[in-house]
Parts: sequence; structure tokens; C-alpha cells
Amino acid sequence: MIFKASIVVMPLEALLDPQGKAVTGSMKNIGLPEIQNVRIGRHITLTVDAENAEQADAKVNEACSKLLANPIMEYYRFTIEKA
Amino acid sequence: MIFKASIVVMPLEALLDPQGKAVTGSMKNIGLPEIQNVRIGRHITLTVDAENAEQADAKVNEACSKLLANPIMEYYRFTIEKA
Repeated sequence: MIFKASIVVMPLEALLDPQGKAVTGSMKNIGLPEIQNVRIGRHITLTVDAENAEQADAKVNEACSKLLANPIMEYYRFTIEKA
Repeated sequence: MIFKASIVVMPLEALLDPQGKAVTGSMKNIGLPEIQNVRIGRHITLTVDAENAEQADAKVNEACSKLLANPIMEYYRFTIEKA
């Protein structure tokens, strides 16, 4: 059974996000000073072939912790649905 | 009033995503060949100061089209909620 996963990987709240900080500064230059606190992470979609939702969940979790996210600097969360 | 926006920017479906393709290949190497079709985009959170939800929506849309997404190669969608 094919499942689709939608994963969000973001810099930990406690850490600075230099890319987000730079973009926050640029908002002023394009006339949008009302926009603040920009934080930039990754959004990843993928498909996983698994027997059931629990197995798909375990595989996506493994992919996140081994390859897609760096747990020292990032946290992740994901949702899974039948494709 | 402060609103929080959650934005997803992804490569257009019609375009190749070389980063996603590389990660799909790596899944095999870490023992997860069941994972396919990896596509990688950005997830952005920010706050916006606006009088109401419609105004917040317009500002976030402007930020996306002017700065956060490249419409030639990417599409975006976002949700807004009261902070």
C-alpha cells in the first residue's frame, strides 16, 4: 500500500535562524515592515510503500531521524495519508 | 492584531527537483528503498501585524510573491491564524 507523507523540518526554537533573520530584514526593504519573526525550514513530501499506516509511520520516522533532519539543530513533524 | 502564518513553498510538479532526486537515491543506501518520490521545498513561519485576517492574508501573499517564492519554479500556499 502506498502512503504519502508530508514532513516539516524546522530549526529548533532555541536556536538562531540566520536565514530567517536575513529575510525578516528584507521585508522592510520591500515595504512590509509588519512581517516579523521569519523562520525558514524545509517541507518534504514523499511516498512510502508499507503494509499499513503504522509501518509507514515507522519508516518515515526513520528517514527523518537518519537523513532528513539534523536533531541537534532541527525538529520535525509529519503526517501520513493513503495515496 | 498579530497573526501567525505558515507557508509552504514547493518546486512546481512539472519541474525536476534535483535535491529531492538525490535524497530519493540516498534512501536506498540507508535501507529504506520503500521511500520514493522525495520532493523538497521550504516551510516558512512568520508573524504579521494587520488589522484583520483579510489584510494579513494580502500582506503574506505579497511577501510570498515578491520574496519568498520564485513563481517561475515554485508554487506556494499558506494558512493564517491569530497569534
